[in-house]
Amino acid sequence: MGALDAMAGPAREAARALAVTSSEAKDAALAAMAAALEAEAQAVLEANAADVDAAHHEQAPAAVVDRLTLDLERIEAMAEGLRTLMALPDPVGEVLEERTLPNGLHLRKVRVPLGVIGVIYEGRPNVTVDAAGLALKAGSAVVLRGSRIAERSNAALVAILDRSGTGAGLPQSAVQAVPPTRESARDMMAARGILDLLIPRGGNDLIQTVVTESVVPVVETGIGNCHVYVDASADLGKALDILVNAKVQRPGVCNAAESFLVHADVAEEFLPKAVAALQEHGVEILGDERVRAAGRGVGVATDQDHRTEFLDLRISGRVVGSLDEAIDHVNAYGSGHTEAIVTEDPAAADRFTAAVDAAAVMVNASTRFTDGGEMGMGAEMGISTQKLHARGPMGLPELTSYKWIVRGDGQIRA
Amino acid sequence: MGALDAMAGPAREAARALAVTSSEAKDAALAAMAAALEAEAQAVLEANAADVDAAHHEQAPAAVVDRLTLDLERIEAMAEGLRTLMALPDPVGEVLEERTLPNGLHLRKVRVPLGVIGVIYEGRPNVTVDAAGLALKAGSAVVLRGSRIAERSNAALVAILDRSGTGAGLPQSAVQAVPPTRESARDMMAARGILDLLIPRGGNDLIQTVVTESVVPVVETGIGNCHVYVDASADLGKALDILVNAKVQRPGVCNAAESFLVHADVAEEFLPKAVAALQEHGVEILGDERVRAAGRGVGVATDQDHRTEFLDLRISGRVVGSLDEAIDHVNAYGSGHTEAIVTEDPAAADRFTAAVDAAAVMVNASTRFTDGGEMGMGAEMGISTQKLHARGPMGLPELTSYKWIVRGDGQIRA
Repeated sequence: MGALDAMAGPAREAARALAVTSSEAKDAALAAMAAALEAEAQAVLEANAADVDAAHHEQAPAAVVDRLTLDLERIEAMAEGLRTLMALPDPVGEVLEERTLPNGLHLRKVRVPLGVIGVIYEGRPNVTVDAAGLALKAGSAVVLRGSRIAERSNAALVAILDRSGTGAGLPQSAVQAVPPTRESARDMMAARGILDLLIPRGGNDLIQTVVTESVVPVVETGIGNCHVYVDASADLGKALDILVNAKVQRPGVCNAAESFLVHADVAEEFLPKAVAALQEHGVEILGDERVRAAGRGVGVATDQDHRTEFLDLRISGRVVGSLDEAIDHVNAYGSGHTEAIVTEDPAAADRFTAAVDAAAVMVNASTRFTDGGEMGMGAEMGISTQKLHARGPMGLPELTSYKWIVRGDGQIRA
Repeated sequence: MGALDAMAGPAREAARALAVTSSEAKDAALAAMAAALEAEAQAVLEANAADVDAAHHEQAPAAVVDRLTLDLERIEAMAEGLRTLMALPDPVGEVLEERTLPNGLHLRKVRVPLGVIGVIYEGRPNVTVDAAGLALKAGSAVVLRGSRIAERSNAALVAILDRSGTGAGLPQSAVQAVPPTRESARDMMAARGILDLLIPRGGNDLIQTVVTESVVPVVETGIGNCHVYVDASADLGKALDILVNAKVQRPGVCNAAESFLVHADVAEEFLPKAVAALQEHGVEILGDERVRAAGRGVGVATDQDHRTEFLDLRISGRVVGSLDEAIDHVNAYGSGHTEAIVTEDPAAADRFTAAVDAAAVMVNASTRFTDGGEMGMGAEMGISTQKLHARGPMGLPELTSYKWIVRGDGQIRA
């Protein structure tokens, strides 16, 4: 266990106490944490400035430094995130099923906390606060393992969350962090019986490592090779708006589009407009012969391009001969995150939504809507692209388990 | 991939076809399979006789041979199992949540099949039929890896299921079996992207191997170190009936009791009756000092005994000073399967059900009721003792995933 040695017992004990902590007490703790983050923002900013200095010194990429850098506004947003959680219903205790059997046994399937949730994440300090808040509201203790690049920022944040949380009555050790070493990540992946769930939040390499090496149950989050398919019967005005929005509104996130498919029947009309509109937004386009013929400066799309989550102003595109060809392409190249069809044909929409194997399938809407906040779930720990346990945005209910409570009057089996 | 090489593509293709197969077609296939099992019972019995001969030759334990041996009645029971599934509602297509967002997007969370389910199991040929039937009704293809000891029996059963299923319109390769080699088990545990779920059904060693080595998502089933706790306020008549039933009604299964705890206030009255009743049923008792004082022939219970799933006419017992001591013991030694309290005190029942961390918590009922059939779920693939995805009996809904279907009219994100 190594880095977790000293934390395992306290985390399990905190989980037992949290499991029977009232909603009011949890919300009061979230409020205290939010207030403490604001009151002690200066300490966080100082720690963060040291991280940012070190990152500059190491010549970290600008995007990495940007994600790392905090200001008062970003700290305020973390505090607001905790207050948003307060307003959400407590998932713990919800009765999911209830029935009385012919033999008089009364069954209730009741939502309960998972226990201890581990999160391994990259250089965004806000994940420290988001993940801790979500886990606590869902009744679980949390063990955080952030990035080395954000070590001082995370330590400052965890100290504030821990102190203000326990000050407001949460059990000791409800929020803990392991040092950001290679060893600590391995320890978490080996912590079967200590962690009930391990969530990797970050890039493909991190997720693949955790998914293949962890003996703790994992929920895989985040890789989105999302497609927009423009059907023969599409309203091409909607199609253009959706494609551009899905690609450019925030290209660095998992629900951005990375590829488009156009039915041959509308390719001649749609492609020149699409190429022009995307290029106007600075998007580099890689396409097949017909896409390349639709405008200047379109590159050749390789098979590898079709498999790539660019997370950038780049997109691959091709023309398909039929709805089924589009479905086959999406199922072969997609990552099971979000896939969109633009069509005015209800039968095509039904076929696409039934046959495409993804967490979310959109009809005439941008792929960018696969998001806990946008979907009315209030907050999310990430977007699951696996089929077990939870699929799509993971809000509070998705961070829980359940138990069966069976009440009888002396029943025995015959 | 090895043994799975040739099966992977056909299994994925079968899964895609099954996902859009109607309930009627699936039920018709189950009926055809049941009829074929009965019609071709002789071929199964012959294959089974060869397996049983070989098992005798290898001097396999009597209990193993008993689980392996088929007769017409057992084959009839397999066919009846398939017919039971026909009568259960199809989980696929169920709308789990539905809402319209302020921006007009219409969200539906719809139950969908998992895809391809792998099952690794020990020497009970009936699991071949049960697992195939459950997976198919839940819309998934199945890859089976049975025990070497049942190789001929399983091959005969899979041939019948495959032939009759495809004859009734199921896709090719919906039911496949890999040879029962060490390599094939490893191949299944490595088959990420081919299998969507891997279920080990069998003893502790098998489950631990699969849980720690598989990179395919696993649902852990089966280990039951179940307790019966007799509270200070218990009706001691009910307590005696429940304890005896939980231990002796079928000692070789996971929901049988392996341990009992008695509150000190009722120990003097309860223990002599309990020891006598258990011994009358041939149960060997291992206990602490007070349990040993309650009757002749009670052995010493070690810490290891308290951790052991005996699966036999043996039980460990001890006296506890309080409800909380009972809860702590259960949470420390239990396997998270089923825990029972016998009490007439509602507050004690509430505290026990809230604080005990198990798939099922029973109040005044035998632990033996944790069972898909008994709990009204109709059939089960096994009993999950993990907290992710499914907990307790895994029926048809627990063998599915879901997707979000979002319908709009051109919505984009601002």
